[in-house]
Amino acid sequence: MIKQENVLIEKIEEALGRRRNTSSAVLLGMGDDAALFRPRAGQETILTCDWFLEGTHFLQDKHPPDSVGWKCLARAVSDIAAMGGVPRCFLLSLALPPSYSGRWLNHFLAGLRRASRKFQCVLAGGDTTRRENILINVTVVGEVRTGHAIRRSGAQDGDVIYVSGRLGEAALGLRILKASKHALSSRDPRLRKHLYPEPRFALGRWLAERRLATSMIDISDGFSTDLRHLCPAPHRGALLAPDRFPAVQVPARLRTRIGDPLDLALHGGDDYELLFTAPRWKLPSLPWKFRSLTISPIGCVTSGPNLVWMDPKDPEHRILRPRGWDPFR
Amino acid sequence: MIKQENVLIEKIEEALGRRRNTSSAVLLGMGDDAALFRPRAGQETILTCDWFLEGTHFLQDKHPPDSVGWKCLARAVSDIAAMGGVPRCFLLSLALPPSYSGRWLNHFLAGLRRASRKFQCVLAGGDTTRRENILINVTVVGEVRTGHAIRRSGAQDGDVIYVSGRLGEAALGLRILKASKHALSSRDPRLRKHLYPEPRFALGRWLAERRLATSMIDISDGFSTDLRHLCPAPHRGALLAPDRFPAVQVPARLRTRIGDPLDLALHGGDDYELLFTAPRWKLPSLPWKFRSLTISPIGCVTSGPNLVWMDPKDPEHRILRPRGWDPFR
Repeated sequence: MIKQENVLIEKIEEALGRRRNTSSAVLLGMGDDAALFRPRAGQETILTCDWFLEGTHFLQDKHPPDSVGWKCLARAVSDIAAMGGVPRCFLLSLALPPSYSGRWLNHFLAGLRRASRKFQCVLAGGDTTRRENILINVTVVGEVRTGHAIRRSGAQDGDVIYVSGRLGEAALGLRILKASKHALSSRDPRLRKHLYPEPRFALGRWLAERRLATSMIDISDGFSTDLRHLCPAPHRGALLAPDRFPAVQVPARLRTRIGDPLDLALHGGDDYELLFTAPRWKLPSLPWKFRSLTISPIGCVTSGPNLVWMDPKDPEHRILRPRGWDPFR
Repeated sequence: MIKQENVLIEKIEEALGRRRNTSSAVLLGMGDDAALFRPRAGQETILTCDWFLEGTHFLQDKHPPDSVGWKCLARAVSDIAAMGGVPRCFLLSLALPPSYSGRWLNHFLAGLRRASRKFQCVLAGGDTTRRENILINVTVVGEVRTGHAIRRSGAQDGDVIYVSGRLGEAALGLRILKASKHALSSRDPRLRKHLYPEPRFALGRWLAERRLATSMIDISDGFSTDLRHLCPAPHRGALLAPDRFPAVQVPARLRTRIGDPLDLALHGGDDYELLFTAPRWKLPSLPWKFRSLTISPIGCVTSGPNLVWMDPKDPEHRILRPRGWDPFR
């Protein structure tokens, strides 16, 4: 009698490359009690794990399975990027209804394989079981040069705040996806940032190698919530310049249906852009573009306690409250 | 507005020791994007993750929350033991209904804390979210001296097969727990092995340090299933001696209700004992007891393809089929 679970593991191994996995990082992948990882000399290991659950992080009827595969890994890799590290390998915990082990699983694994190759992050192991809903948990192991990791907690009064890319694009994609009555192509460019986010680990690593940033986080829950982690009350706050803020652009005809672009940019989650701080005197070292990615200085750190949105139309200035994603709210 | 998720993280940190966590292994624990782990020179890193799901791995109305906390970590640590390694730190992914964030969570964290201290495995990070069922995933990071990890795949024809402890005790505990109409004390000694299993990492490490074992696995799914991983068909099999087999003892008055003790020992899961093979000439180096733990030689590896149970009452011998736990069956 062949164990059914083994058939599933076999399929995952097949898709994610049994042989290719024996990279220099991973000595022993799936199929043993645990994986063996050989850390490189002079590096610290970065560890992170992330839930990716049907109904909470994706909708079975709206999200194509290959996006689920891509995004469950991208999300966790983004936490490695936020420390200035590079991903090395990952563990996949997957719980599935038996009826999903055919077509759905194939597409899921195809998306996961694309992400694994793109991020150079190989499958090292995992756990599978049966469940009535699709449950995913991904652990990513990364590395960063010893002493170079960028933490959340280093921001100093007067530091400049920077953000990569354009914020709110993922939230816009989600709203378009939810609002559409018929199926949309997963190649629709408006959905790209929501379905196939790209963790910014090249930028993160560059900042860490040169010790340019004093603190860093990836924007996963939403700008207003994540900035609070870099500038925690009561001793840290921020002054933000709206004219520099790289908010998503929403075509006028969509605005009534989709909502205010600034709202999406400030509070929408899933952007996976990097938000970081750097001392003022390092400003000349920071380019406006890193490869093709825009880097915008958007304000500065204060001795707190508020995040202040300096709206020129409103002389009182507006206090920005954290209104990003909170699963318990 | 305080993020509710932060309150939950705060509670976990409080219980599992914010300060105590900054052990030499973990440089940066919860509260950042990811954890930082400093590998020791001359060691390989072992990585493993395990589901622990309400309804699949535990029953909300039968299993006390402090056993859930203990066991979710013990289960994953056991995979480190099976490689001959020692645990260093873990990541906790927890999804909870809001109504469980009071008393249930406190007891869960108390069990987890006891296990964390006992196994010297500190909390390094994790992820939390809200969910209608309790979902747990635990990643454990361990270490083993470079080149000393014991894999599943090294068994050779003629090697002696050994097992630690007594098999079937956990399955007996589960049956007693399920059969009882009223609540049982979690201190009932018959339930101990099922509720609070102890991974055998001291034995595993001892075998690895001395290079005594050619292959090893922990018995989590059940002996008949896990032995198949060490002796895979068609080129490996085993001859097993029933008189040496350390099966659980079931009081005669319970037998009709609970079932055959040999059945529990051969196919019951959750024992977390170590099953390993060693060359015949190393037999003198292997004690009958390791500390207070019995080590039984129970048979030998053959060139296969069957697992043969040499029942003296049955001259035909009996082929042992894998009938352990399979979530997909």
